[in-house]
Amino acid sequence: MPGVRLALAQTNPVVGAFEENSDVIVDYTRRAAESGADLVMFGEMALSGYPIEDLATRPGFLRHSREMLHRLGARLEEEGLGDIVVVVGFPDGPFEPRKDGTASAPSAIAQNCAGVLHGGELVARQAKFHLPNYSVFDEYRNFIPGDELTVLRLGDVDIAIAVCEDIWRDGGPVSRVSSADAGILVVINASPYERDKDEVRLPLVRKRAVETDTVVAYVNLVGGQDDLVFDGDSVVVDQAGRILARAPQFEEHLLLVDVQAADVTPPTYSEGITRVELPRRHVGRAPIAEDIAILPDDREQIWNALVLGLRDYVEKNRFRSVILGLSGGIDSSVCAAIAADALGPDRVYGVSMPSRYSSDHSRSDADDLAERIGLHYRTEAIADLVTPFEDQLHFEALAAENLQARVRGIILMGLSNAEGHLVLTTGNKTELAVGYSTIYGDSAGGFAPIKDVPKMLVWELARWRNEHAADRGETPPIPDNAIEKPPSAELRPDQTDQDSLPPYEVLDAILDAFIGQRFGPEDIAGLGFDPKLVEDVIKLVDRSEWKRRQGAIGPKISQMAFGRDRRLPITYRHSQ
Amino acid sequence: MPGVRLALAQTNPVVGAFEENSDVIVDYTRRAAESGADLVMFGEMALSGYPIEDLATRPGFLRHSREMLHRLGARLEEEGLGDIVVVVGFPDGPFEPRKDGTASAPSAIAQNCAGVLHGGELVARQAKFHLPNYSVFDEYRNFIPGDELTVLRLGDVDIAIAVCEDIWRDGGPVSRVSSADAGILVVINASPYERDKDEVRLPLVRKRAVETDTVVAYVNLVGGQDDLVFDGDSVVVDQAGRILARAPQFEEHLLLVDVQAADVTPPTYSEGITRVELPRRHVGRAPIAEDIAILPDDREQIWNALVLGLRDYVEKNRFRSVILGLSGGIDSSVCAAIAADALGPDRVYGVSMPSRYSSDHSRSDADDLAERIGLHYRTEAIADLVTPFEDQLHFEALAAENLQARVRGIILMGLSNAEGHLVLTTGNKTELAVGYSTIYGDSAGGFAPIKDVPKMLVWELARWRNEHAADRGETPPIPDNAIEKPPSAELRPDQTDQDSLPPYEVLDAILDAFIGQRFGPEDIAGLGFDPKLVEDVIKLVDRSEWKRRQGAIGPKISQMAFGRDRRLPITYRHSQ
Repeated sequence: MPGVRLALAQTNPVVGAFEENSDVIVDYTRRAAESGADLVMFGEMALSGYPIEDLATRPGFLRHSREMLHRLGARLEEEGLGDIVVVVGFPDGPFEPRKDGTASAPSAIAQNCAGVLHGGELVARQAKFHLPNYSVFDEYRNFIPGDELTVLRLGDVDIAIAVCEDIWRDGGPVSRVSSADAGILVVINASPYERDKDEVRLPLVRKRAVETDTVVAYVNLVGGQDDLVFDGDSVVVDQAGRILARAPQFEEHLLLVDVQAADVTPPTYSEGITRVELPRRHVGRAPIAEDIAILPDDREQIWNALVLGLRDYVEKNRFRSVILGLSGGIDSSVCAAIAADALGPDRVYGVSMPSRYSSDHSRSDADDLAERIGLHYRTEAIADLVTPFEDQLHFEALAAENLQARVRGIILMGLSNAEGHLVLTTGNKTELAVGYSTIYGDSAGGFAPIKDVPKMLVWELARWRNEHAADRGETPPIPDNAIEKPPSAELRPDQTDQDSLPPYEVLDAILDAFIGQRFGPEDIAGLGFDPKLVEDVIKLVDRSEWKRRQGAIGPKISQMAFGRDRRLPITYRHSQ
Repeated sequence: MPGVRLALAQTNPVVGAFEENSDVIVDYTRRAAESGADLVMFGEMALSGYPIEDLATRPGFLRHSREMLHRLGARLEEEGLGDIVVVVGFPDGPFEPRKDGTASAPSAIAQNCAGVLHGGELVARQAKFHLPNYSVFDEYRNFIPGDELTVLRLGDVDIAIAVCEDIWRDGGPVSRVSSADAGILVVINASPYERDKDEVRLPLVRKRAVETDTVVAYVNLVGGQDDLVFDGDSVVVDQAGRILARAPQFEEHLLLVDVQAADVTPPTYSEGITRVELPRRHVGRAPIAEDIAILPDDREQIWNALVLGLRDYVEKNRFRSVILGLSGGIDSSVCAAIAADALGPDRVYGVSMPSRYSSDHSRSDADDLAERIGLHYRTEAIADLVTPFEDQLHFEALAAENLQARVRGIILMGLSNAEGHLVLTTGNKTELAVGYSTIYGDSAGGFAPIKDVPKMLVWELARWRNEHAADRGETPPIPDNAIEKPPSAELRPDQTDQDSLPPYEVLDAILDAFIGQRFGPEDIAGLGFDPKLVEDVIKLVDRSEWKRRQGAIGPKISQMAFGRDRRLPITYRHSQ
């Protein structure tokens, strides 16, 4: 069996930044070539970033993408890198619109492609067959499906190419890989992180390797793009499904691996298969060390996803710093710790905004947090700002409670306008679900670091982060008191969350059944919850859809996040 | 040729309100039966409301829909309406998930169906073949396509059934209608209003009538559902494409028409066609008058769409009243006039919130408007609320300007909390496009009546509305001064919009090319605009995507509205 050296370049592209992304591709290609690799592969749309959403409907964007791919090929050749095979994802077009649009709303004009560059030229192009159009994905909206499988004959080995979703479904490319007797299956991906997704993804890759009798090289993007975090975790498995190499999660990496692939055989099957012959490069090769990353604990993975999601939103949008309100409570404390891990404490600004209802501990816990983390910290009492509204407008009850939150929102937005910070809003998934927040108040902000983290998990992550610090001999960032005390919005005297909400362990379980599992009220009650309580919780969720629609984006870590993952009408009347 | 009396029931369902929608269907069926109709047809998903979005992924919702359809059939029979054929749209399921989802994100489990009720039973079911997944539609996400054409043999006439998109595309149902030699084609629709859409829709219906040699009866929903407004405009055309009947836009209507359809022929073609035989009812029939509505002028259509969009958002979500800030400017004046037309002036609350920079005319124009319309009106000066922030936080420049807008947002939201009004935000499409608004300030609100109306069109609508009032001998609602004066945000002394923006006629033209036509910068410059200005405008649009994501919904009237019509990343770096 011929030995082939593969390089999997797990890069972090920025959507639309063709120049910068090309620089990274050239850099990784050089490193792969210098390491003696025969082929280097980049993630899905590594040239343009992913997802490009409706940018795929702009003819100019697509023309630019195609031009930048050709320019990349020429540049690699110029820099003496023309002999290594480069597989890189890019959006291609414009093509004639697919036939299901209208004159005013043309349908897809793009394809989601893997381009193969060699000798300065685009020598092959593989378009994605299966276009995911569920969950956060709108690919059927934006792309025209492909219908040809590309197989590269690289000297003595046949290498088939597939794009992401194409290995998730039977039929199409996967069945042709077997028919083509390929030795290696190269899959380029943009697969966002979800809790426990590795428990689905890795077995799938293994299954495809065994089924198709190929070495499968699976490269994924890494990095945050709006509400998605690509986790990397690129992997190579052999024909028996054994892991040969695995890249770490959540960081850029060049994964090198030597594989033994089946010899080429005379082609026996050719329908729907495009074959392209390329010469193997002749280079001396130093041996390489085994590179198999171990996945960390579930809580550490989530934490890392949240940190990277925030960091990339800040860096890719060129903010210098973030600002957030510190209440001494668990949510803002966890957000501050995430921000400090993402950007360093010097780029994090905390503001304590006590009201007349704020307890002593809320101030002292916020002070303690700020000191532990070492962030910039100031106090702005809100009483003198709130009173004039009360005097002039006589707000009481709910109006008076929301007023306090909105005055805090004004302070943070004003400091953002004056000093250039990105405002973080610190609401968790449980609050967002039931609408337990003040719109334009504590929900004000450009990014919501824990919007997909239910309250119980917020506590769990806080404990984990502190233990993790202690294990490394560092100061735990989150005051124990912020973790242990009963949660309160402190918008009226002696208020606690449990005045108006069920205990969080019950609430989170009901919400997971309703939102995560899509259970109906009867099925949820069947799990042992009070039917009246279930009905009440569902009503709260449905009635706060309008607030969620106006909420900031934040990193998706669950199988069902609020946002484009879950698209529901605001106007919706329950009759059942 | 046999004569058939058709009834097209143009109803306004509420999403999820199966009981109420069923009541309406029974009511219209009774009226149709009493008028001697052989068949009554309702719009797409008239039973459940449309669009149901991801409610289509809830098994419980779908089970309920199917059950409610059966219950509707039984009820019609009980009420002596079993002999009229009823065609009604409903979501059906749950079926086995389509094969392209994952365990955690199952794909479509529903079909978008027309159900045929007769004699108390569901006697036929036609599932939509072609699932629009462009513009505002996500149907491929949520539905499994159908593959059978249903043809009802009703005594001596064959009636084929299609659902909405199925007549927009060649192939599929349309070609089978010809093969089946049907005499009538019944099409049930949920086709939202867009400016000039009738210029596409009616010719399409005519073309299909001629092509298939059938009488085409096209029934559309009417009413607002979140950001969509269904305009009705149901129509019946004969085999030569001549209009036999046409319902008015934007109101519920029962359209009755007698048609002459081809006799049945022995079936010559049957592949993919399900035939169902039903008896004609035997009833005496009084003659009916011709009912052909004339479409009003373009501006009146738009105005009516905006009025209905707001009214239905308010009524379907059970708000008693709306509140909005009145600045004396054109945008808030037009919004107030729309609100008064939608709800009556007694359900509209206006608040003048002058600052130290407000001109005398802004106050007097707001007073004048309030008096002309007769809405509830109060004044809350903001100086005493703004000053404490300035004193404590030393906000200047942009921070100080935004502060004023945010204090106004707090006032309106507080009054909403205290008194239960829906807050209207009065920004127009041009402002939203370039980000010329204060987030959590003037953008605060649950509904944005003119968010899809560019500034130039706001003026045009204001003039039209005043002329329309004058034509009817009524008081023009909008003060001339609000229309004629140069627009200003009045956030600093002597400010006008044109300090920071190009003239609106130029800006709107560039925005229409970029957003509406999807032109790139070079193409726009090619229309004769300064390339630097075009580049600057595009940058403003792209940079304010984060604000638009957090904006209120409002009625779509253009071919490309902000919101689910135009899905773009926030994080997006320009390299071209």
